[in-house]
Amino acid sequence: MNDRLQRVLRGEPVDRPPVWFMRQAGRYLPEYRAVRAGTTFLGMCRSPDLACEVTVQPVVRFGLDAAIVFSDILVVLEAIGREITFEAGEGPRILEPVRSASDAASLRRPDVADALPVVPQTFARFKKILPEVPILGFAGAPFTLLCYLVEGSGSKEWAHVKRLLWSDPVTARSILDLLADVVGDYLELQASTGAAAVQMFDTWAGVLSPEMYREFALPAAQRALARVKSAPRIYYTKDSAPFLDQLRSTGADVIGLDWRVDLGKARKVLGDVKVQGNLDPVALFAPEAEIRRQVRQILTAGGPGHIFNLGHGILPETPISGVEAMVDEVKRFTY
Amino acid sequence: MNDRLQRVLRGEPVDRPPVWFMRQAGRYLPEYRAVRAGTTFLGMCRSPDLACEVTVQPVVRFGLDAAIVFSDILVVLEAIGREITFEAGEGPRILEPVRSASDAASLRRPDVADALPVVPQTFARFKKILPEVPILGFAGAPFTLLCYLVEGSGSKEWAHVKRLLWSDPVTARSILDLLADVVGDYLELQASTGAAAVQMFDTWAGVLSPEMYREFALPAAQRALARVKSAPRIYYTKDSAPFLDQLRSTGADVIGLDWRVDLGKARKVLGDVKVQGNLDPVALFAPEAEIRRQVRQILTAGGPGHIFNLGHGILPETPISGVEAMVDEVKRFTY
Repeated sequence: MNDRLQRVLRGEPVDRPPVWFMRQAGRYLPEYRAVRAGTTFLGMCRSPDLACEVTVQPVVRFGLDAAIVFSDILVVLEAIGREITFEAGEGPRILEPVRSASDAASLRRPDVADALPVVPQTFARFKKILPEVPILGFAGAPFTLLCYLVEGSGSKEWAHVKRLLWSDPVTARSILDLLADVVGDYLELQASTGAAAVQMFDTWAGVLSPEMYREFALPAAQRALARVKSAPRIYYTKDSAPFLDQLRSTGADVIGLDWRVDLGKARKVLGDVKVQGNLDPVALFAPEAEIRRQVRQILTAGGPGHIFNLGHGILPETPISGVEAMVDEVKRFTY
Repeated sequence: MNDRLQRVLRGEPVDRPPVWFMRQAGRYLPEYRAVRAGTTFLGMCRSPDLACEVTVQPVVRFGLDAAIVFSDILVVLEAIGREITFEAGEGPRILEPVRSASDAASLRRPDVADALPVVPQTFARFKKILPEVPILGFAGAPFTLLCYLVEGSGSKEWAHVKRLLWSDPVTARSILDLLADVVGDYLELQASTGAAAVQMFDTWAGVLSPEMYREFALPAAQRALARVKSAPRIYYTKDSAPFLDQLRSTGADVIGLDWRVDLGKARKVLGDVKVQGNLDPVALFAPEAEIRRQVRQILTAGGPGHIFNLGHGILPETPISGVEAMVDEVKRFTY
């Protein structure tokens, strides 16, 4: 049994930090692309067999300390009543964006066990294949889901969602509350059906000013995480340096950081909250010696209570050799 | 004579903060689009008459406290020997990106007065039309120019430029040195031919970790700014919260901040360095009362030694009424 991740989550000593990485089941892997070639992205998200297959791949190839279930953060938007499409070469599209109180009235609060059965089914399959490896569940954070729901797609400026926050904060908060409850229920469902920990991705919270983060994204994140009782909770944000001091109050057991935060400083700000991260995904394109240097630097700054990870999802063009160097360097490290 | 900007730059008291904003001569203005319709973006950059015309437009329409000369940060890349194109609907393209020592060997150090005559000519025209209004010059910062030079276009990940920094830091530093010298000379040319102050845009420095910023972007910014003797220097970065403590050492008289920095906290970190910013450009889409509230909050946090501005360039879709509310609220403020 590989219990490094659980030991760190419980605050127990480990020989070295556990290592996994965001989007580890992804397009940089030829074996993933082979599975993907026979179906669509949403097809993979909807099939426990295919999701399990790609979830297992990187764990076996690299000997990682944790799996993360293959799925997508936007499945919660389908569960509340919005259709999602992924066109080739484009990001996701939400067919009917929500931009007003009347749009919001059409959203529903589902029973998550009925509406989102695939991930628990994937956990069951995974545990038959790799029972000794912990598996993580995940969901998008309420604010990040609101971004897609309002904008209808990815965005650089997120003008529609900010406009809603400023022009109709009552409606914005009511949607955030709904999302927080559904996300919280969904994370708890995963926690109670096999996840060793759950990660909530607040990828776009960093587009907000510290004031707006405090007003909207933080309370929604707190509300969602408060519903999770059955496993430790990891909260990831990108560009979180401006509101790092607020992250202690999310209620998360672990804060996931991108590469633009000095890990040593972050530990001081976050106190006894554990940390995860924070190698720049682009560093995996660097020469091997440079990858190893950066990994060691992060491990040293992180210290006990640190889970090694990238600072954002791995890029599709990443060379496998870079991943191998990163993982090997973590495994050579001792406290 | 409107000398609010110069008084703030000299540390003298003013009745209220000066106001101008990034990309104020831009596509959100119908009178700008009318000029643009008859030519191309680069055509405007190359014509002192057209550049002057659009530079004047927002100053007259809104009664701003400063103009900023119409030009583009990439003109320096043309001056060192790279052709730039702007295709409709796309960003800039550098036809021959620089990714190796041999690529870099083809770059040249120009005499900036010969290679970049348009902005000084535009200043001369502007001063005949609006002699009472101070005009700013500008250039891209060395690291941000390196981003475009290496990548060949805009990018989300800037993988090519980071790869160069990590795999061949000697070549990266030699290009940064060349860029710093040319940018410094160009800013000094502008300072000595009519600019009341010059702004250096390090728009993409925020993609770096604090360590990488210290290693590469900061020394290059210092080298460029050290060459500017004839006018005060403003240094703007986006996403600068992770390395805010390093910005004091750039040598800039003023630090321009995006909206993801708490202005009050930034003032404490930056000490006696003046600040500029930092309204979210998307806030101009908000209801008028909300725009005014945010402007007042920034003015209060900024205090004396603050130049009001947006935290990033104004968006093309911005309603004119939002700009009017912002400017009016600054003008109503008193210390």
